Amino acid sequence: MKTTIRVAIVGCGTVGGSVASLLLKDRRLIGERSGVDVELAAVHTRTFSRATDAGVPEELFERSLETLLERRDIDVVVELIGGLTVARDIVLRAVANGKHVVTANKALLAHHGTELWEAARANGVCIGFEASTAGGIPVIRAITDGLLANRIDAVYGIVNGTSNYILTQMTQQGMGYADALAGAQRDGLAEADPSLDVNGTDSAHKVAIMAALAFGIKVDFDAIPVSGIDLLESVDVTFGSDLGYVVKLLAVAHRTPDGVTPWVRPAFISREHPLAWVSGPFNAVSIYGHATGHTLYYGRGAGGHPTASAVISDILSIGMGTLPAVFDHTGYWQDRNKDARQVPMAQTSSRFYLRIMAKDQPGVLAEIARIFGNHSISIASMLQPEVTEDGAETLVPIVITTHISAQQNLEDALAHIDALDITGERAACIPIIEEHAERFGTTE
Amino acid sequence: MKTTIRVAIVGCGTVGGSVASLLLKDRRLIGERSGVDVELAAVHTRTFSRATDAGVPEELFERSLETLLERRDIDVVVELIGGLTVARDIVLRAVANGKHVVTANKALLAHHGTELWEAARANGVCIGFEASTAGGIPVIRAITDGLLANRIDAVYGIVNGTSNYILTQMTQQGMGYADALAGAQRDGLAEADPSLDVNGTDSAHKVAIMAALAFGIKVDFDAIPVSGIDLLESVDVTFGSDLGYVVKLLAVAHRTPDGVTPWVRPAFISREHPLAWVSGPFNAVSIYGHATGHTLYYGRGAGGHPTASAVISDILSIGMGTLPAVFDHTGYWQDRNKDARQVPMAQTSSRFYLRIMAKDQPGVLAEIARIFGNHSISIASMLQPEVTEDGAETLVPIVITTHISAQQNLEDALAHIDALDITGERAACIPIIEEHAERFGTTE
Repeated sequence: MKTTIRVAIVGCGTVGGSVASLLLKDRRLIGERSGVDVELAAVHTRTFSRATDAGVPEELFERSLETLLERRDIDVVVELIGGLTVARDIVLRAVANGKHVVTANKALLAHHGTELWEAARANGVCIGFEASTAGGIPVIRAITDGLLANRIDAVYGIVNGTSNYILTQMTQQGMGYADALAGAQRDGLAEADPSLDVNGTDSAHKVAIMAALAFGIKVDFDAIPVSGIDLLESVDVTFGSDLGYVVKLLAVAHRTPDGVTPWVRPAFISREHPLAWVSGPFNAVSIYGHATGHTLYYGRGAGGHPTASAVISDILSIGMGTLPAVFDHTGYWQDRNKDARQVPMAQTSSRFYLRIMAKDQPGVLAEIARIFGNHSISIASMLQPEVTEDGAETLVPIVITTHISAQQNLEDALAHIDALDITGERAACIPIIEEHAERFGTTE
Repeated sequence: MKTTIRVAIVGCGTVGGSVASLLLKDRRLIGERSGVDVELAAVHTRTFSRATDAGVPEELFERSLETLLERRDIDVVVELIGGLTVARDIVLRAVANGKHVVTANKALLAHHGTELWEAARANGVCIGFEASTAGGIPVIRAITDGLLANRIDAVYGIVNGTSNYILTQMTQQGMGYADALAGAQRDGLAEADPSLDVNGTDSAHKVAIMAALAFGIKVDFDAIPVSGIDLLESVDVTFGSDLGYVVKLLAVAHRTPDGVTPWVRPAFISREHPLAWVSGPFNAVSIYGHATGHTLYYGRGAGGHPTASAVISDILSIGMGTLPAVFDHTGYWQDRNKDARQVPMAQTSSRFYLRIMAKDQPGVLAEIARIFGNHSISIASMLQPEVTEDGAETLVPIVITTHISAQQNLEDALAHIDALDITGERAACIPIIEEHAERFGTTE
């Protein structure tokens, strides 16, 4: 039963180093478990220090990318350099040369998935990308294999460990965003430039990949509304907590009667929701299917070894022939998917948490309530937390939760309220996400 | 790419009815997602009322099991009658006739796995059993596919929804066991005869299946130490809660230097542990791999539709050819596994919660502490919760937690203490399970 498969790693940083190290050290274990003998055949990278640390012998260093991509003895190219330009070129050339590709590059797949899958299919090879989404958690396999009997109604992910770590510090330690970010950087859990993590872009890449597979739609990445945690204020974390909510950076896609709505933003969820438990750098994805109901997948979404676990599982699936079979059979891949309407955020509905800073004077609450009424926003609760300073000129917070409201109406109302001379800075607005209903057997 | 596969269901109760209903109603959806056209070809069952409810047309009723098992037009037999005798016979005859089998029958696999897999392999077919463990959660696939790059160190499962529902009621509502069980029966979450669920047998079947796949060992089912929740007293749930613990019926298997230890028993886990969050009828399985670290899989472990989701995923994997490939390639199946030492419970170690009922008189604590000392049991905390009654003749609880102790030493000490004339009924003893350590990259 033993199949041999020869692998080249392109890009040997943290993840590449872990892949190389595990392939070399655990070759026998992996072969025994999977029946696939994986031989590390070549490593190409800018500087070989990580490769050396991982125990890669110098004779496997392949300094010419050109040569590597042409070598006939290589079955699988593992692309781990990241980025869009060179990585795209590498993947296209690898598949053109009849090599399977395994990648952790979520940005590449979110932007160029259709093109890459078309190219792979045209060349009779496949692309493995378990490592692109939620690191060591086999969630891509859950969607493309384990849950195949389901019509998937919704995917809710906490898929950025850096953001989740920062939010956990803000929630549990009462830290402000800047301090929590600095702490994450100190602990090695945030990059020196954390922009793509904290501004939601990384989460958007991942939800784009999951939405395509779950719903069978071509996702227009640029049409995904994205906001990150970088504008979140700790006062809202605290007030939300008083109301029984935990703030999480959610990457969500769900069906609505009008289409599919993928989005990324900080949102409040009830402390009782399983996703509220996911703390520190961990990731989790909740998937709602019409047969399974709610299933959730939890684990480490980043880091060398967890991500390497996902990379190697794809190599093994190629060796066993399972990934090619899934790639051939299943209907929901970017290149096979249908165009679908991505519902703009303004046309969606939700409950909301709002914090309006207003002068502490008579008639203010009435005025604000009147404006919401005019825009068909129904208020669920309104409270004025006690603050230490006072006086008519001081702005005090008014915390409001709404019933389900149309986002467009809410935006109109807030624009109106922000323009009042009794209110201060821009109102804070965070959606409150209810537990998604399980709808067994219903595909309508 | 479309493959057609013809399926017969044997046993049409809750799960069989859901499988039939989904296959008939969602044939197009399932075909679109998986590229496999699943045709329901026959249903054999004792009474066809559920089949009728599920919309199975009468021409698919196959009243003769003999005929069904001989029919050449059937590719897959779905065995859902349960039990050990007839089910074993059906599976053996189906595979002998060259048919793949899909089953939810955990007892059958736990007892006869080796024989059945050998028979399937000899006939060039395979057995799908995703539905046997944790219902709709694709945890068998996680072990046999998604986590293939890992040496798995430990599996911790909450895999019996009935028990978890009862324990949740005891923990959150302060109910006694009998009331909670009656409530579960009223809510349709416990059978009229709930023995196999509440006494731990069902969980033991599941941990036997998972341990074989995770560790590559032949599991001796009869050597698994099992205790259930039926002897649990609500006073211990309360005292444990005061100490920060939640009681769960855990099905555990982990490596020790001496072998593998599968066991099932009620255990305390910290309120911070992800498994503590799993409430009501939900199941979850935590798996610790040397590459991924901790991953957890959560969802509904029973019920018609969730279990049917798992059954159909196996049918589709057979249609796609992925299950046969995994069955051929991977090394860890009961029929291929090695014998391994199953460490007897008495030779394992743990922290423990103990409740000793003793006379409320001077010297009692000292005597108990002395006995523990003599047996090398190190006490972490000892407290005497206030009780309303008093007097030298009344027995009052002494609650003790220990540091890591050898189970055999503990049993010896408790036998000694139970025999004292200052102590009453048998001491309550519940292990306290620590968060399993993630050991990245270590296979020693």
